[in-house]
Amino acid sequence: MRLISYRLNDEPGVGVMTDATHFVPLATAAPQLPRTLRSILESGDGWQQTIAKAVAGKASNLSLDDVELDPVIPESNAVWALALNYVGHQKEINLKTSALYPQVFLRHPASQTGHDQPILCPHPSVARAFDYEAELAVIIGKPGRNIPKERAMEHVAGYACYNEGTIREYQGHNRQFGLGKNFEQTAGFGPWMMTPDEFKNPYQQMLVCRLNGIERQKICLGEMLFKIEDIIHYLSQGYRLRPGDVIATGTCEQMTPTPPEFADRPNLHPLKKEGTVHMMPGDVCEVEITGLGVLRNPVAAEPAGADYSPD
Amino acid sequence: MRLISYRLNDEPGVGVMTDATHFVPLATAAPQLPRTLRSILESGDGWQQTIAKAVAGKASNLSLDDVELDPVIPESNAVWALALNYVGHQKEINLKTSALYPQVFLRHPASQTGHDQPILCPHPSVARAFDYEAELAVIIGKPGRNIPKERAMEHVAGYACYNEGTIREYQGHNRQFGLGKNFEQTAGFGPWMMTPDEFKNPYQQMLVCRLNGIERQKICLGEMLFKIEDIIHYLSQGYRLRPGDVIATGTCEQMTPTPPEFADRPNLHPLKKEGTVHMMPGDVCEVEITGLGVLRNPVAAEPAGADYSPD
Repeated sequence: MRLISYRLNDEPGVGVMTDATHFVPLATAAPQLPRTLRSILESGDGWQQTIAKAVAGKASNLSLDDVELDPVIPESNAVWALALNYVGHQKEINLKTSALYPQVFLRHPASQTGHDQPILCPHPSVARAFDYEAELAVIIGKPGRNIPKERAMEHVAGYACYNEGTIREYQGHNRQFGLGKNFEQTAGFGPWMMTPDEFKNPYQQMLVCRLNGIERQKICLGEMLFKIEDIIHYLSQGYRLRPGDVIATGTCEQMTPTPPEFADRPNLHPLKKEGTVHMMPGDVCEVEITGLGVLRNPVAAEPAGADYSPD
Repeated sequence: MRLISYRLNDEPGVGVMTDATHFVPLATAAPQLPRTLRSILESGDGWQQTIAKAVAGKASNLSLDDVELDPVIPESNAVWALALNYVGHQKEINLKTSALYPQVFLRHPASQTGHDQPILCPHPSVARAFDYEAELAVIIGKPGRNIPKERAMEHVAGYACYNEGTIREYQGHNRQFGLGKNFEQTAGFGPWMMTPDEFKNPYQQMLVCRLNGIERQKICLGEMLFKIEDIIHYLSQGYRLRPGDVIATGTCEQMTPTPPEFADRPNLHPLKKEGTVHMMPGDVCEVEITGLGVLRNPVAAEPAGADYSPD
């Protein structure tokens, strides 16, 4: 089952995909269900069966073109993200990380946007190194604390593609990533949540990032160092995982060398990481996970000195 | 003006303090106002005048003993926190930090609790180094992006005491603080929000931390390295500050030597920081800011292996 979060005439909705582009809106198929995916997950076990029953035989009378997609979980309670969770990425930037404990940090939900929505490149006067990071996102269903590894997968409601967009200059300002991972609307999260029964074994799928159609990252998800169950077990030692919480499981290395199509772009990575290609307004960035789908985000320019502060 | 967030019979409320212990509930004095402090701040400029007018001459028929205090902003949208923002704290742990950019990270609101509520010490099988960190919390009123320093203070709705409780073992697991700053209910945030007109110049006030009545930290807030306006200016370069957002402005060094009362407690700080006294169940930790108030939290034991996961 693939579930989307969307807005139609500014009203939030949840839909069940029936093919690559059409979906059944739950607002009509199952009006008794809450209106957001997070609330549906909060309603407890059985949501998947309820939805399956509700949409069976219903007309998929809406397509993705009719709506605006939100992040898969629009107002995530928590977005945990991992640093350095693939060996190749550790090697390319030559930074030490613990082999015993995952390196985790928080993203703010305001830094996310949905499939086909623009991700925002800062004005060059603010920063110039805006980078994609293709990742598998895990979405929590059943809440829990102190979750043993062998029961961790029971807490997964589904999976999505995540582009963990990063402003390198700000990430490098100090020891904590802080603001570099939290510029407004710099991450893509979509296109949908696929349930585990449909996605099956994540570690047999490929994670691919393309910029303007050109491959820039490619790895088998099985190369992930801290596996999904390790991360859930670890986080739940201190934090109670809640329905709709998101875990972005980390990105892999760049492909090298830099393709000729990007030869004119300066490498502004603080560590001059090989193969670096920063995103620019007008680009289109895609994160594909085989068996799951493709998250696509155009890159738009954030206006200089934009000030949303009302006087 | 001092405003509290509380629960009475499980209903959230906002109150205006009239002396050290009594308050006027806004639910009766100004029923037209929203029911949470965050929503009041979101209602825009003029909230302080509206409240002042509404409570003038009204009876303060409730006392702090009648209610349970919540964190000053119970469900904060964002809690930004600063590392290494006092020279003495940098020296005692001998860690490098940028002189140009503040070191910022995010706390999850679930890691917070209110005045007089217990903060939770992990079971010794999980971690043993549970540390207080006394800080000044700044609460954002007016939203804004790209806020110039000279206008930053217009965005401050008020101030509170913050005990930025930390699990040192987890903080030290890896490069990002991650989980060490985000155990459930490990930070105190209270007792109230004091508005800038009443608090006046923060940099002339003292920040004090006491464990079981014994002073452990003491600094003039004027020693802060990145000042409030610097931090607001910095964060707003990437993130749109929103009403009710919290900024914990960093902690200062420990007082040394370790007082004889705590001589029997082992120093489990990963860097063996001098003067370290970890908190234990049964302790009472206080953060006082002169001219503002005292935040007090008893330390309670978290049960071992507590599992909130419903089957």
